[in-house]
Amino acid sequence: MLDHKWDAGPGENKAAVVLLSGGLDSTTVLALASKADCSCYCLSFAYGQRHLRELELARANAARFRAVRHLVLRIELDAIGGSSLTSAEFTGPKVVSSAAVGGEELEVKIPITYVPGRNTIFLAYAASWAETLGITDIFIGVNTVDFSGYPDCRPDYLEALNIALNLGSRSGRQRRPFRLQAPLLNLSKAEIIAKGMELGVDYALTHSCYHPDSQHRACGRCDACVLRRRGFAVVGRIDPAPYQPQPEGSWAR
Amino acid sequence: MLDHKWDAGPGENKAAVVLLSGGLDSTTVLALASKADCSCYCLSFAYGQRHLRELELARANAARFRAVRHLVLRIELDAIGGSSLTSAEFTGPKVVSSAAVGGEELEVKIPITYVPGRNTIFLAYAASWAETLGITDIFIGVNTVDFSGYPDCRPDYLEALNIALNLGSRSGRQRRPFRLQAPLLNLSKAEIIAKGMELGVDYALTHSCYHPDSQHRACGRCDACVLRRRGFAVVGRIDPAPYQPQPEGSWAR
Repeated sequence: MLDHKWDAGPGENKAAVVLLSGGLDSTTVLALASKADCSCYCLSFAYGQRHLRELELARANAARFRAVRHLVLRIELDAIGGSSLTSAEFTGPKVVSSAAVGGEELEVKIPITYVPGRNTIFLAYAASWAETLGITDIFIGVNTVDFSGYPDCRPDYLEALNIALNLGSRSGRQRRPFRLQAPLLNLSKAEIIAKGMELGVDYALTHSCYHPDSQHRACGRCDACVLRRRGFAVVGRIDPAPYQPQPEGSWAR
Repeated sequence: MLDHKWDAGPGENKAAVVLLSGGLDSTTVLALASKADCSCYCLSFAYGQRHLRELELARANAARFRAVRHLVLRIELDAIGGSSLTSAEFTGPKVVSSAAVGGEELEVKIPITYVPGRNTIFLAYAASWAETLGITDIFIGVNTVDFSGYPDCRPDYLEALNIALNLGSRSGRQRRPFRLQAPLLNLSKAEIIAKGMELGVDYALTHSCYHPDSQHRACGRCDACVLRRRGFAVVGRIDPAPYQPQPEGSWAR
């Protein structure tokens, strides 16, 4: 489980549900599964305008890696996410102080689009779809090296959720338990990029930036851009994704 | 955990996210939480035309039991559920035989609206919203007595998911772990009804039938109706919900 040396059992046909966001990590995961002769059922989520470009790229990569199917589900994360904390409609729980729940930290340090336990929602849908399709392997592009701050990217969480998904499903209770696969879990961004290039990923068709401009060009300065740029620098390659013009001398690509 | 003798800790204010479908069980759970002086944040899901009446009733009961808020999320269960197996778009996984996944059983015995692991999706949303609100208690109206066939209604599943939700969230990792509460878990339908009546539930405002007519009157014959009727018979009360006319002699209310 969670081992990036993923392999189906002997004589077993391979199929997987692959969570595909249109970002660098999940696209690399799709390439890994696809190149291992796996029939990929890609699952993406539409939750707001900001993500339309990512969905376009997810579609392009699903086609490029010959996914059997690409399902895009509309979900209303906005209604439950951090944005609820600031909406006019939200009156606040009368019982909860910000101290008791780390409310300050939530408001100050976490982006407005952060939704607690988002990966649990994504994986719950993935497992539901997988069971309908008769598929047991579910791929997700989380990794702990760069994002150790997110609880829903950690291996103990994934292992616990894998157990719960099996107990909560017919196939898990019977002879075909789910296997959550997180092949990038222990890889650095540079290792992920190197592996993806080896597998034919076109990183021009992936999006990482939190603050792209209207032409979908990356800002080059947000956390996601910085991580991505460092990764490409380490492998000594130029990131083919489009960037906004950068101040002279600030950034040697 | 999962104990129906639910109580907040000493000096702790009480608040809970309550999964509310508009059915008999979840409405009783809402009454339980509300009568225990709990500030209730009700969460319902809209997933198709069939459920509009249930949502109306959920709204009515949320108001009746003075929920602080009632959030209705639209979700696309149709796109991943059993119905996908029969849709024109669905070409079928090339790798999965029906024998290997119990496909026959799915098609024959499980209703078309059955979605594997649906409670995991619901509870994932509930936990996400709860964390945003700073709430730790999450109520769900599952019970094993009447529906032991559903894996995602069993206590071992709920306990495993509780662990996963905690590992996958900031509040769970820190000092405020989630508590999944299933106060009806070990109650029969009759015990649930008796408790609800004691707490002031108006069961005319709950819907159970799988095959209501255009006036939302219950058929009286589907599994849900039969279970419900038996429950009312055992407690010696008349079900106030509207039923379609029944063949004479077939059913003494």
